[in-house]
Amino acid sequence: MTRTIVASATREVVIGFDQPFCVIGERINPTGRKKLAAEMIEGNFETVKADALAQVAAGATMLDVNAGVTAVNPNETEPPLLVKTLSMVQDLVDVPLSIDSSVSAAIEAALAVAKGRPLVNSVTGEEEKLEAILPLCKKYDVPVVAISNDETGISEDPDVRFAVAKKIVERAADYGIKPEDIVVDPLVMPIGAMGTAGKQVFALLHRLRHELKVNTTCGLSNISFGLPHRHGVNAGFIPMVIGAGMTSAIMNPCRPQEMEMVRAANVLNGTDPDCTNWIRTYRDYAPAPGASVSAAPASGGEASRRRGGRAARRGA
Amino acid sequence: MTRTIVASATREVVIGFDQPFCVIGERINPTGRKKLAAEMIEGNFETVKADALAQVAAGATMLDVNAGVTAVNPNETEPPLLVKTLSMVQDLVDVPLSIDSSVSAAIEAALAVAKGRPLVNSVTGEEEKLEAILPLCKKYDVPVVAISNDETGISEDPDVRFAVAKKIVERAADYGIKPEDIVVDPLVMPIGAMGTAGKQVFALLHRLRHELKVNTTCGLSNISFGLPHRHGVNAGFIPMVIGAGMTSAIMNPCRPQEMEMVRAANVLNGTDPDCTNWIRTYRDYAPAPGASVSAAPASGGEASRRRGGRAARRGA
Repeated sequence: MTRTIVASATREVVIGFDQPFCVIGERINPTGRKKLAAEMIEGNFETVKADALAQVAAGATMLDVNAGVTAVNPNETEPPLLVKTLSMVQDLVDVPLSIDSSVSAAIEAALAVAKGRPLVNSVTGEEEKLEAILPLCKKYDVPVVAISNDETGISEDPDVRFAVAKKIVERAADYGIKPEDIVVDPLVMPIGAMGTAGKQVFALLHRLRHELKVNTTCGLSNISFGLPHRHGVNAGFIPMVIGAGMTSAIMNPCRPQEMEMVRAANVLNGTDPDCTNWIRTYRDYAPAPGASVSAAPASGGEASRRRGGRAARRGA
Repeated sequence: MTRTIVASATREVVIGFDQPFCVIGERINPTGRKKLAAEMIEGNFETVKADALAQVAAGATMLDVNAGVTAVNPNETEPPLLVKTLSMVQDLVDVPLSIDSSVSAAIEAALAVAKGRPLVNSVTGEEEKLEAILPLCKKYDVPVVAISNDETGISEDPDVRFAVAKKIVERAADYGIKPEDIVVDPLVMPIGAMGTAGKQVFALLHRLRHELKVNTTCGLSNISFGLPHRHGVNAGFIPMVIGAGMTSAIMNPCRPQEMEMVRAANVLNGTDPDCTNWIRTYRDYAPAPGASVSAAPASGGEASRRRGGRAARRGA
């Protein structure tokens, strides 16, 4: 059984096929958040702190930490900023962290100060990346997200993406890194642009789980890019990828609908024993006023009795 | 490719692996609805009519029609009541219908007046049922729901339930009924009572699709029996069963959350080409006030740009 172990200073989390889905909170990331980027450049970490606390309160299993403020020279400016951000977050919350940067020097600097066993996010199949990141993962004995693209970009062909993932796993093995420390991101395409994007991912997840035996992750909300009511598409995607074998996702835990689907899928996938987490979370649940536009009284309880009743009648 | 064809007087619907999920509206059923049963006994069909219209308006593909008011002698009273109810519904709406009764004489009477090509709901693996229902399906050339229990009741062992389904398909073949006209209900157990209920169903759906090559259905809300916030569990179950290969369900289409997950799963499963139905349904979507308790601004668009941006940076 594949077990990817991540840890903060005080808490260990296992990512695995028999584990609750690992929700990696995506909010601490200035990419596309101009206001946050400006704050971080100024040395103001109030939003970072608020996002860290809110995501953990909302149920995040881990937090991704990215400090890519796209300065002129990220190789110089990003390492100290990522170290500062990561240090602040790990002093504030006790969940394991994911060190997220496209700047190898920033990942190295963050690894040097990180407590526990963080996840490195990420390596790709690009030669330069493999040579920069894999030795760091070996040196610090940490797992890494492997994104299925290489020098040629992101292939629309899922077989090519699988081949890139396989190459990364093999190259990691050359460095003495086990498959259980590789978390593959098969890359999720927007379903609005590519109608087969969903089925591609489901098929890839099956192969990654059964052939490469690795844990998996994705940038979840990519699937709904360009569509109206994106959160509905994201919410439907979550149980499908969990059913198809995905074991983690980089997503926004502050969206109640998406987190509800994570919790439901854990129940249905058998990773919330006795439905303990579901019952604890929803025992006093009441729908928001106006949220239900049911044209008829709720029939959940009736439906069950009905099917049970019919079976009972037949059995009698 | 397995195609189960059902039809009303004017409209044909295909149930199949490459088709949008078939939502069979469950509301026209007095079992467990005392008020509705009392109305139907009195000859008052106002609720039946309202439920028919509401379910079609909410997006039901088909409607189940049941008149089991549990009178003293259903063999005498149910046939005329089911005929009356079915006739009323088929004159009011143009979706295909499912004739739902545990009384064989009621099914026969309803088949004699039904327009188009209704679905019979249901036959089981019980000898008496097989001998009563299969000849009717052959005579009227209609498909039938096959429920995976027999004289011994409902087995908790999914292999036994599969064997019962296989037996029904084989017995139907003896009558000249093709597998494409058998829609198997693998029977969904409550996940609160049996933690493996979800994984059982997913595995059974795989076998039913790939070994027996049949379409499938279930009484969807059984899965959440006994749990708090049942609609959340039902909503999460829908994308998982669709991903696992289920092609229809008997459910309440008047629940917006469940229907949203059906529509999202159709998008993700590739059966809503160009997301046409999703976009038409949700292009003006606005969450109900108070329905979102996001602790931070919505980040959907940002997340996409972020992953895209990182990939772009890497590719550059």
